[in-house]
Formats: sequence, structure tokens, C-alpha cells
Amino acid sequence: MAQQDRSPQEFTHVDETGAARMVDVAGKEATARSAVASGVVRTTAEVVSLLLRDDLPKGDALATARIAGVMAAKRTPDLVPLCHPIAISGVRVDLETARDRVRITATVRTTDRTGVEMEALTAVTGAGLALHDMIKAVDPAATLDDVRVERKEGGKTGTWVRETGAST
Amino acid sequence: MAQQDRSPQEFTHVDETGAARMVDVAGKEATARSAVASGVVRTTAEVVSLLLRDDLPKGDALATARIAGVMAAKRTPDLVPLCHPIAISGVRVDLETARDRVRITATVRTTDRTGVEMEALTAVTGAGLALHDMIKAVDPAATLDDVRVERKEGGKTGTWVRETGAST
Amino acid sequence: MAQQDRSPQEFTHVDETGAARMVDVAGKEATARSAVASGVVRTTAEVVSLLLRDDLPKGDALATARIAGVMAAKRTPDLVPLCHPIAISGVRVDLETARDRVRITATVRTTDRTGVEMEALTAVTGAGLALHDMIKAVDPAATLDDVRVERKEGGKTGTWVRETGAST
Amino acid sequence: MAQQDRSPQEFTHVDETGAARMVDVAGKEATARSAVASGVVRTTAEVVSLLLRDDLPKGDALATARIAGVMAAKRTPDLVPLCHPIAISGVRVDLETARDRVRITATVRTTDRTGVEMEALTAVTGAGLALHDMIKAVDPAATLDDVRVERKEGGKTGTWVRETGAST
Amino acid sequence: MAQQDRSPQEFTHVDETGAARMVDVAGKEATARSAVASGVVRTTAEVVSLLLRDDLPKGDALATARIAGVMAAKRTPDLVPLCHPIAISGVRVDLETARDRVRITATVRTTDRTGVEMEALTAVTGAGLALHDMIKAVDPAATLDDVRVERKEGGKTGTWVRETGAST
Amino acid sequence: MAQQDRSPQEFTHVDETGAARMVDVAGKEATARSAVASGVVRTTAEVVSLLLRDDLPKGDALATARIAGVMAAKRTPDLVPLCHPIAISGVRVDLETARDRVRITATVRTTDRTGVEMEALTAVTGAGLALHDMIKAVDPAATLDDVRVERKEGGKTGTWVRETGAST
Repeated sequence: MAQQDRSPQEFTHVDETGAARMVDVAGKEATARSAVASGVVRTTAEVVSLLLRDDLPKGDALATARIAGVMAAKRTPDLVPLCHPIAISGVRVDLETARDRVRITATVRTTDRTGVEMEALTAVTGAGLALHDMIKAVDPAATLDDVRVERKEGGKTGTWVRETGAST
Repeated sequence: MAQQDRSPQEFTHVDETGAARMVDVAGKEATARSAVASGVVRTTAEVVSLLLRDDLPKGDALATARIAGVMAAKRTPDLVPLCHPIAISGVRVDLETARDRVRITATVRTTDRTGVEMEALTAVTGAGLALHDMIKAVDPAATLDDVRVERKEGGKTGTWVRETGAST
Repeated sequence: MAQQDRSPQEFTHVDETGAARMVDVAGKEATARSAVASGVVRTTAEVVSLLLRDDLPKGDALATARIAGVMAAKRTPDLVPLCHPIAISGVRVDLETARDRVRITATVRTTDRTGVEMEALTAVTGAGLALHDMIKAVDPAATLDDVRVERKEGGKTGTWVRETGAST
Repeated sequence: MAQQDRSPQEFTHVDETGAARMVDVAGKEATARSAVASGVVRTTAEVVSLLLRDDLPKGDALATARIAGVMAAKRTPDLVPLCHPIAISGVRVDLETARDRVRITATVRTTDRTGVEMEALTAVTGAGLALHDMIKAVDPAATLDDVRVERKEGGKTGTWVRETGAST
Repeated sequence: MAQQDRSPQEFTHVDETGAARMVDVAGKEATARSAVASGVVRTTAEVVSLLLRDDLPKGDALATARIAGVMAAKRTPDLVPLCHPIAISGVRVDLETARDRVRITATVRTTDRTGVEMEALTAVTGAGLALHDMIKAVDPAATLDDVRVERKEGGKTGTWVRETGAST
Repeated sequence: MAQQDRSPQEFTHVDETGAARMVDVAGKEATARSAVASGVVRTTAEVVSLLLRDDLPKGDALATARIAGVMAAKRTPDLVPLCHPIAISGVRVDLETARDRVRITATVRTTDRTGVEMEALTAVTGAGLALHDMIKAVDPAATLDDVRVERKEGGKTGTWVRETGAST
């Protein structure tokens, strides 16, 4: 993968003595950046059918997950210890149901000094946890899988796109 | 699976009109309950080697993930819209490294009116997001997989244990 | 009004020197308590029509307000300086649309040492603010009115019900 | 009203499928913006007299409400699901007592990509909830009324001023 | 000191492998507990005089510090990674001004499974930080000193009282 | 001290009537700023020896304190009532153990409209509280001392450095 050429050989979140720190990004430029992350809640056909049946006027199950995802994106610096607080300029969380699963895709945008892939990943897990909470009485065995960055744009490193077939 | 016998056919988090609500648990007893959840961060051997190399005196990478997991468990009601605030009595987050992955296991205990599987799942995703944040510069393609409940105990429904081989 | 017979003549949230404090409720019993609060968002017929038109499959506007209300109830001790953290056992937020307004009703239950009217009021304002946010581009003049407790039950003071006709 | 000429006919917070989202404001300019919101706590003359009597050296009741309002403004993105996190540059909350009511006025300023009317409204409700909490033992029937934007300035849409007599 | 007889020789917050955890307190009884902590903001006589002059009707400086202390107590589990969420039943924060200093004393009560000394200490630092914030333009050299537990009562270990003369 | 020449004679956080407010900083420039704060946890030689013994591979005690400090810096506007939300660009928390004490030093950087000394002080108290929590079972008499700003740079007032010998 192309990005490996520029991969650091050390973690930037710990200093030379191994101590955790929030890396200073003051020297980076505030530019337009975006990230897309995704994940899959694997459950049963019965649950998906309930989710869709519920998706009648006022049916709030999928809406609850979307909103949980948007709100989780905003809580990223509270949850991820070494993440910077970021001026998120937009978030959308898309849910796509298949026979026995729900695919979650989150897109986050900013004009700030660091990327928003953690915000996108946090949105995906927030939506996934909310779905799990709602379906757990019917399917306690549901799993949240394949939480990953699909692409990110902007910043000095430019565009990164996941290689197809890299997983799942 | 045994639990299917007692599975409700409707989501309890939406009422008969489909409106989201926090289900009233006042009628449930405050009893000892626990839940274990797990997940896997799939990354590269290089990253695991950096995590372990980092695991020298003062190496904070794995500690950061453990603490992120414990703190995330406490934020569950802030993140999962319809979750009850719960008096968590204990949390532990275990990280086990393999060649190219880190397995996360979270155990949460309470003496309260509802189960703690959402807290355990939130702890796993919190630790997973923290790990992702630290390794993303080296491995932007890392994924968080198989986030799921392994077992829960206590409450009216008693013990539930994931069937082996059910996934992964 | 009946409740005036038992009204204290002093605020309990400030001590004899006038200093703010969180009153100690350790001596009160943990009993079943509930509170209902309501409020009205006054807007235009155009907005209500958009809210209802939106109330198609996947229309999230009203769901967003309901969820904002439930989540706000959980944030009450973070927002109201002298409120106790409370083990909320259930929350529901009902929205009823009329020609040019949306009536919000929130019901909160607990089994704890103090009442939940502040949680119910906070749920109403949370839902009201979320509605305002969504409709403000169409109707910047919308107002949130009549935010008030309708009834509360439980605890030493027992049931209190708002006198009809007391306002609006 | 003049602003109706430019009112959108659709909610921007839900997309064409009705799904909630945080609208992307990256394309908007970071400019000086301000908003003023107000509201009224209607209570009894007895309560206002206690508030004023309390307003002696160290009397914290009104201060508590002012501070609750300022802090609530900062929590706006945590409370209002689709609101952007905003770099608030200033907040003031003014309380004006009349015979049997307290008028709350909040002014919020920013230099950011979107307006601060939600922050101003949240400050008003935060102060109103704090007042309600302090006076509820004496006047459980108090109401929070007329929570509304009075004016907003800055941004592409420029100045908007509530028409006098539009409500109350 | 008497308490040394019962001091553990190991930290309970890390397990035998050194991993951080939130110790399980499910086995401990929910009993009445309290803790008193104190601290001192050392500043200049000029600042204390401004604080007192400000302590006129509507003078909010000391009130702001008291309220910050009460609210900080409620945020303890968000701030202190391995602290349990606790059902605080009461908090008071007292400020005593001397010539060139302000003494902060916080008293926290609960009926829960673990002590509240961390909540009392967090209240003291919350009030201290708020004071520092308000006086820093006049006295950037102010310090927060002697933040410590004065006494704690309740629980299996019973009453602990700081030996006089132990510090300051 | 040099800075006294430019010290205001009034608190800027309260207006002319004494009411608390968040001062408007919109007129200030967004420039690079930094602040260093420090503090000392005074405890026993036994505790420091446990902290260091614990500082083996996976020993999380000092890491927990560092991370608590970094995360506390991000919570500053939630804790300090009149503080502005700030775009922190970097935080580091250094812990230095001596025979019977741990010195905490926090460095915070930003490019924003106001200084970050409160963020640095909050990081120090966050780390100090986390240390206290971990050591309190062994040394309930531990104190957090000398929490103070060491230096700040940037902004209109430029560099301020604590005079040596000013305290401790």
C-alpha cells in the first residue's frame, strides 16, 4: 500500500520515554478534511425484519442509531484519550439493511488541523452500540464487525483509500 | 439457542407507536449482575511489535487503551441514547496481543436493576478506538472486529453464554 | 393551592449565609417516584406540515426531538448545578402536533431519594431545543412556552397535580 | 416577515430520504456572529421576594442561574443532537426580576461558521432550569415561558430581529 | 498514624500484572459515608480585597467558585479514571477568605458502596480552578495548595481524621 | 513583578454589576499560545516505591495519571464555569518521582483567541487527583500542593514567567 512509504516507524502518541501525550498539531494547517468509516452489525433476519417493520411513520429505531452516531462523533475527544478536540463541520450516518445485517457508514468533515478518521470511527461505533442496545433483547448474540476507515481526504498526507478486498 | 425461547418478538425500546423511550426498569430488582464482552483489533505484526516494544517501563500505549475502556464504560448512558444510568461497581479491560492483533475483553459488574452488557460493549469499543487512534499513523487499515457479548449473568433472565463457534 | 400549606419559606438550595449547596438527601428514603412535565413549541402551520410530511419512513425529525429529550433527562445533574445525580429508571417523551404547535410531554421515573421533576423539565427543554434547531431555518421566530411540571408522585410530599387552568 | 423570503421550504437537518444529519458548514465563512435569546420564569411574588432577599452578600441564587446559563451554552452540542460544536467567544446571561417573574436574556458571540442562536437558547433554558430547581420547593407551579430568539447578527443571512408584538 | 496499621501494601487499582482496573465494590455495603477535603488558594491581598468588594449584591465571584466545586464533585467519575460513579446525596463548598488567601472546604455525603474522598477533593480543585480563572488576570502567580482529605467517615474502615500539624 | 504593571484592577469575569459572564474574546487574535503549569503530590516513600515498582511492563499507575491529565485538559470548559472552549493543539503531562513526592508538569498548546493556563492547571489537578485516587488506600494523608502556572507564552500580553523562589 502506498501509504506505507510514509508510515512512521514509531507511535507518535507516546514520546521517546514511552509516555502518552496529545501530539502538538499547531504546526499543521487548518484545511478541509474528511473521513469515511464503516462497520457492520451482524444479527438475525428476524431483527432486520423488526427494524424495517418498525420503520413506519414514527418508527424510531434506525433514527436512534443515526443520531447516536452523530452525537458520538462529537464526543470523540471525551472518549479517545489522545484525540484533539476538533471543529467538526458536518456528520452523516447512513444505515443500509441487508437480510441479516445493518451496514453503518459515517462521513465526517472538518476544516481543522488534524484528520477526522477517529470521529468517523467513533460515529460508527456509536451507531453500532445504539443498534445493539435496541436489538439485544431479541438477539443477544449480535456482533459489531469490520469497523474501519474507508477513505480519508485532506491534510498533508492527502487521500487514502482502503484497498478493496483488504478485509471481510 | 436457548435464549430464543424467551426472546421478545418486539423491540422494547420503541413503544406501540414506534416512538423511542427508555424502558422503565423500576419493577426489576437491584441484583448482582455482570457481563463480559470482547472484540479484536486486527492490525499488522509491525504494529503489535511496536505495542510490545512500547510496553517497557512507562510505555503507555496499552495502558491508554485499558483506561479508555474503563472510562468509556462509565460514559455508556451518555453515548447509548436509551441506556439507563447504572451504578457500575467494577470494570476490568484485558488486552491480549497475538501476532497481528489485539484481543480486548471487558468485564463489568453492577448491583442494579438492569444488565451491563452495553457497558461491557462500550468498554470494548472505547479501548478499540483508543488503540486505533494510536496505531493509525502506522496502520491506517486496522479494523475493530467481533465486538460482542461473551456472557452475562444475573437478573431475571439469568446466565447467557455465547455459543462457541457462533462467529469469527 | 394545597401545596402552599407545606411550602417552605426559604430556599433549601442556599444555606443561612446565602451560599449555594446541594442539599443532603441521605435521610430521605429511596422510593418509587415519577414526574410529568410538559411544554409547547409554537411555530407555523408550514413547519408542522413539514414535520408531518417528514414523518414518513425514515423521517427523523420527531425522533430526533424525542431522543434529545431522553438524553437530556440523563444530563440533568450536569446542567442544573444543585441537582443530585439520580438513578433514572425510565423516560418517555411524547410529541403531539397541532395545527401550528408541538406539545412535548415527558414522564420520568426513578426509585431514589429525591424527585425527578427537574429531569422531566430538562427532557422537555431538550426536546424543545432539538425541535427549535431543526425548524429554525424555516421559522426563526418559534418559541418554547409553558415548560412546567404537570404532576409528581412519590416521596414524603406525595402526589402533586397542577391545578387546571393555572396557565396558558 | 422579511426572513420568510429566504426561508427554505425543507428542513436542512434531514436529507432527501428523511435521515437526520449534521449539515456540513465547511463552505460557510468563519465570521463574527452573535445571538440574543430570552425567556421568562413565571412564579409568585413570594419567590421573587425570596430571590431578592437572598440577593444579599453571598446570596447565590441568581448567581447560580447565571452560571448555569453560561455553562449550558457550552454544552449545546452535547444536548442538541444536530448542532455543530462551536468556538463560543463570549456569553452573558442577564436576569431581571419583576413582581412575580424573572426575565432571562442570554447573549452569545462567536467567530465561527454557523450561528449561535441555539447556544443562546440553551443558555436561557439552562438558567431557567436552575431557577426552577431552586424555587420548586416554594412554587412547584412555576413555568418557563417565551423562550425565543430576539435577534441574531452575522453570517450570510445577516441581521434578524424579532418583530415586536410577535408573541407574549 | 493509626491508619497505617490497615494500609494495604499494594495498590488496589492495578492488578497483579500491573493493569489498571476499576476495583469491584459489589461486595461492599451501601452505607452512609462522608468526606471533608480542603485546600488553599494563595494569592495577594489585592485579590482578596477585590473578591470581598465584589461580594456585594450580585457579586458572583465566590458563588462561581462554590458552584464550580459542587458541579466538579458530580464530574468525579468523568475525571478520575478508576473512580466509581457514586450516588452523591449532598455537597457543600465553603470559602473562607483571609488576608491573602481563600480556604476551600468541601463536604460530600453519600449512601453508597465506596467512600467519597475523591469527590470531596475534586470539589476542592474545581472551586480552586474557578477562583484561579477569575483572579489570574490580576494575580497570575496564584497557587492552589494543600489539597487534602481532612476526614472521612463510614464504610468498613470507619472514621479517619487527619493528624493535626501533618502539613501546612 | 513585571506583570503587575499591566494587571487590571478589576476582575474581568464579573461585569460592573458583579454578574458573572464569559468575557468576549472575539476581538483577540487567534495566535500560537502555550502554558506550563506544575504541582506536587506529597506522599510517602513507601508509595513512591510502589509507584516505581509498579512501573514495570504493563504497570499502569503513572500512565493513568498522565492520561487523566491529558483528558482533564480537554474538560476544562466543562469544569471552569467562565472558561472558553478552546482548540487545544497539544498536551503533555510529565511526572517526575522524588523520594516521597511526584512532581506533575503539564504543557498545553493552542492556536486560539485566549490563553491555555487554565487548561494546563486543569491537567495538573486531573493528574494529581488520579494519583491521589490510586494511592489513597496506602496513604490517605497525601496532599496536592503548589498547583501553579510556571510560564505562559503568546497573546497580547506575551511571555510571563514565574519568578523563581516565588513560592514553595
